[in-house]
Amino acid sequence: MPEYKAPLRDVRFLTDEVFDFTGRYEALGATDATPDMFAAILEEGAKFCEQVIAPLNRSGDEEGCHFDNGVVTTPKGFKEAFAQYVEAGWNGVSSDPEFGGQGLPPSLGLLVSEMIGASNCSWGMYPGLTKGAMAAIHAHGTQEQKDTYLPRMTSAVWTGTMCLTEPHCGTDLGIIKTRAVPNADGSYAITGTKIFISAGEHDLSENIIHLVLAKLPDAPAGTKGISLFIVPKFNLDANGEAGERNAVACGSIEHKMGIKASATCVMNFDGARGFLIGEANKGLACMFTMMNHARLGTGMQGLCLGETSYQGAVRYAQDRLQMRSLTGPKAPEKPADPIIVHPDVRRMLLTMKAFNEGNRALAYFTAQLLDIEHLSQEAEERERAASLLAFLTPICKAFMTESGLEVTNIGMQVFGGHGFIREWGMEQLVRDCRIAPIYEGTNGIQALDLLGRKVLGSQGKLLMGFTKLVHQLCQQHAEHPQLKAQVAQLSTLNKQWGELTQKVGMAAMKNPDEVGAASVDYLMFSGYVTLGYFWLRMALVAQQKLEEGASEAAYYQTKLATAEFYFSRLLPRAQAHVAAAEAGSEVLMRLSAEQFAL
Amino acid sequence: MPEYKAPLRDVRFLTDEVFDFTGRYEALGATDATPDMFAAILEEGAKFCEQVIAPLNRSGDEEGCHFDNGVVTTPKGFKEAFAQYVEAGWNGVSSDPEFGGQGLPPSLGLLVSEMIGASNCSWGMYPGLTKGAMAAIHAHGTQEQKDTYLPRMTSAVWTGTMCLTEPHCGTDLGIIKTRAVPNADGSYAITGTKIFISAGEHDLSENIIHLVLAKLPDAPAGTKGISLFIVPKFNLDANGEAGERNAVACGSIEHKMGIKASATCVMNFDGARGFLIGEANKGLACMFTMMNHARLGTGMQGLCLGETSYQGAVRYAQDRLQMRSLTGPKAPEKPADPIIVHPDVRRMLLTMKAFNEGNRALAYFTAQLLDIEHLSQEAEERERAASLLAFLTPICKAFMTESGLEVTNIGMQVFGGHGFIREWGMEQLVRDCRIAPIYEGTNGIQALDLLGRKVLGSQGKLLMGFTKLVHQLCQQHAEHPQLKAQVAQLSTLNKQWGELTQKVGMAAMKNPDEVGAASVDYLMFSGYVTLGYFWLRMALVAQQKLEEGASEAAYYQTKLATAEFYFSRLLPRAQAHVAAAEAGSEVLMRLSAEQFAL
Repeated sequence: MPEYKAPLRDVRFLTDEVFDFTGRYEALGATDATPDMFAAILEEGAKFCEQVIAPLNRSGDEEGCHFDNGVVTTPKGFKEAFAQYVEAGWNGVSSDPEFGGQGLPPSLGLLVSEMIGASNCSWGMYPGLTKGAMAAIHAHGTQEQKDTYLPRMTSAVWTGTMCLTEPHCGTDLGIIKTRAVPNADGSYAITGTKIFISAGEHDLSENIIHLVLAKLPDAPAGTKGISLFIVPKFNLDANGEAGERNAVACGSIEHKMGIKASATCVMNFDGARGFLIGEANKGLACMFTMMNHARLGTGMQGLCLGETSYQGAVRYAQDRLQMRSLTGPKAPEKPADPIIVHPDVRRMLLTMKAFNEGNRALAYFTAQLLDIEHLSQEAEERERAASLLAFLTPICKAFMTESGLEVTNIGMQVFGGHGFIREWGMEQLVRDCRIAPIYEGTNGIQALDLLGRKVLGSQGKLLMGFTKLVHQLCQQHAEHPQLKAQVAQLSTLNKQWGELTQKVGMAAMKNPDEVGAASVDYLMFSGYVTLGYFWLRMALVAQQKLEEGASEAAYYQTKLATAEFYFSRLLPRAQAHVAAAEAGSEVLMRLSAEQFAL
Repeated sequence: MPEYKAPLRDVRFLTDEVFDFTGRYEALGATDATPDMFAAILEEGAKFCEQVIAPLNRSGDEEGCHFDNGVVTTPKGFKEAFAQYVEAGWNGVSSDPEFGGQGLPPSLGLLVSEMIGASNCSWGMYPGLTKGAMAAIHAHGTQEQKDTYLPRMTSAVWTGTMCLTEPHCGTDLGIIKTRAVPNADGSYAITGTKIFISAGEHDLSENIIHLVLAKLPDAPAGTKGISLFIVPKFNLDANGEAGERNAVACGSIEHKMGIKASATCVMNFDGARGFLIGEANKGLACMFTMMNHARLGTGMQGLCLGETSYQGAVRYAQDRLQMRSLTGPKAPEKPADPIIVHPDVRRMLLTMKAFNEGNRALAYFTAQLLDIEHLSQEAEERERAASLLAFLTPICKAFMTESGLEVTNIGMQVFGGHGFIREWGMEQLVRDCRIAPIYEGTNGIQALDLLGRKVLGSQGKLLMGFTKLVHQLCQQHAEHPQLKAQVAQLSTLNKQWGELTQKVGMAAMKNPDEVGAASVDYLMFSGYVTLGYFWLRMALVAQQKLEEGASEAAYYQTKLATAEFYFSRLLPRAQAHVAAAEAGSEVLMRLSAEQFAL
């Protein structure tokens, strides 16, 4: 099983040398997030993840969750680890101090989540969903609702869920059937069946706070008639403590390909007592508060599992002896050379490394935008951050999960036959990653969100908010002695981004199907260029550090080589996506539904 | 669970309309393979696969194989299905009549294997390995060995294995440790441990004939000192019947990501009685008889699982209602439109369809080469077929499994969240497919075989054997009224193939690492162009049929649309592989092994 070590050096490269996290914290007035505090949280977080939850990853997969008559039992050790998590206060790192949180910036919370997700993806789902639910209550709940639920969710004594999907609808929430009928006391009776509810039932927390989409009796049809409700597993007594059981129960858990230690529940609401959160019929907007949080978290899943896979693959490639180098023995004293001498093994490792580190840069940039959105005092700055965040969220979700899946598959491949054997742990990372391109809005939906809603929906404004950054960087370094070829390559792609958008946009005005025909390839193109931007930024920093004669020259040289690899071997894929995105909808739409089965 | 129906219409399109199987059988003197016989085998094979083994696919995955004290039990129903297979004589369809086979051409055997592999990949491993072992005995065994083993293996009353891999070596067979010590009676005592032995132990057959690589006491070091041995599970008595147990036993079975119903065994040879097959120290060549057979079979796995996945995905896309078409409701009477109205769902389905049907054409073309190699009376024709086969084998193995894995992953994606749930059966296809890029020589090894051994090793001759076919086709149809754009696109790529080869070949003369640096991308490029050739051939036939006013116009129009999709949306990926293959080895080799862990 690959042993996870938090990649703190690479984390610090980004937070200190590329993005200046603590400097920005200070500028944003987050005075508690001192460099010392920052370092302490990273180190303690790494310790907790490496020592407490990573060791439960393989056993959790083998054991899975168990369901018996409405009761869900998580794998051995999960409960104890969760108790430690609660005890140490990890869940509230970046939560509102008004409700017991530490009030540190969101980006610091994300760094902790990254280590959790890389150590044990399934275990990380329980706190992950809780934070999504907290975000929705925080943004849309009344003061009373916040006071009632947030303190115990901040500590994670209570956990949360998002109850959206029903058997007949996932993407299409406008057709949900769950009903909410007003009670005399202002509460609602919620009735319906929800499926695919992560952490819907389990044994880690004292109460589970479900956030449930349902329709009021007089609700308009479609998405304009959805409302959001708080439905606790245990109704609260007069003191706000978990009291009698509410009429919500887990009917079964799913048997899945991966994330087997995460309980995926069918939840039956049978007149359960619930409370409207936010305005009636405006539940979709409230839900998106959760969803946007969850989409970034899902994107992180691609990075997390990719990182763990990479660590395993490098160690294996350094240890496994097989064949001789084509240029002559490199370890003549051994029966064969370690496979890391072979160029194709290096190609695999560098592909993994280039995606992981590029994705990490994208994620951390996004995390800084979250900081600004939450903490900045200037409306204009907040707005600019929000726009960039809106633009980058579908890219994070879809591109990071697609590339994460590629990375984990490559990691398995490096192990040869052993990669297919469960005890080595590499195939679990693939299975755990495989859900990420599906849930929280499939990557196809992300692509429509990016191209249709965000880019074309803003007449290109959201795109230009990002391409301007790319343009500025390229302009500034057009004559860079070592990196000008990469600058030119990125600059060309950046222009192409605008042209492609115009082309698809023009076609879409005549035929809306052109958006759907181009969207996934448009998103993948966008992802490759976006990572190109961050790889250039990282390469510029590494180059400068080398010129300054910094210590750790080997580290910076590795960074530069990985950047060069990205530009020469991965970024060219962007052109294939342009060709596909420009191919148009006609060939897709020409066939009848029946012809597909011929 | 996707219900598999043998795609007989598409099979007949290729066998009858594109490749003229039965006409070629006649020309090759395979007079038993009449059109009636051909049709009967396809139809009866389809019935057996659809009704007997396909229903065991999901349950076999859930149940897996069981190991208890050296005994392996296959999942419920496997034994009965295998008895039916033996009873009907399916195993000997294309085997030598001298040993009880039906003596039909190899291509007909492959058509049957395709249906088996698509119905139940794990179950198909048992006869699949047997055929590989039979091929080795047939090619390299003495008349006595053939008489002894082949009749019962042809009927599949006995099954076979290939015992190559050891814990410390898979690719690098030169360093195997298994030893063969001569006994006084001319047999050998085989001692060693083999791992990853498919069908090494099970309850389907009365005896298991292991083909085992081992080293003689005086053997030269490396691959020139490997010999091949026949080691039966049960020693044969005086009548050639399975008698006393030999000193070979299954030590355990692996717990794997997929193909769980295929027993993957650790086999311990403890002075087991074995018999040299072929010349001493020439075992590697004998092994390649098995391996080449197995590599084509492994390539088929990508097609088989891709086909089953596609069938499931199309049905789901036709049935599942979700969202409205962007151009307005298509099923206004229903709560939502079937998802097949959405362009991106069609993009996914057409990607699957284009790979599957392209891969099928490649496989059938290869199967015809096998026919010629086995049956032709003309040495020159046989040689030409053998050369093309040598060239196409690594492409079949690697490209068909890479694209098959993409196809099965897309099939899962079409199902959204349900794709991740085991009972729907789509994720099993991904897990079952995931081994295919790894075993029988990883795809990295295939790429080295293609570029290093086959293409550069023949000074480009093997490549030109194929590019000449592409060139002739393009020249012949350069002015084709409907397809000239595709012809031009293919023609350009075909020229580029030669240029890329020259470029890499020149670089490799200075630095052998250039081969390994380019090989996988070179293979993927080759695969895309190869499928382009077959898609053009299929499109030309479909176009002609339409012009002739053939019935089933919808079928041929679908074929043309799929061809157009392949050329406009998938074939452009070839350029990304050119860029990567041309990027060179320097950036890969620059880093020390330690730097990868920084």
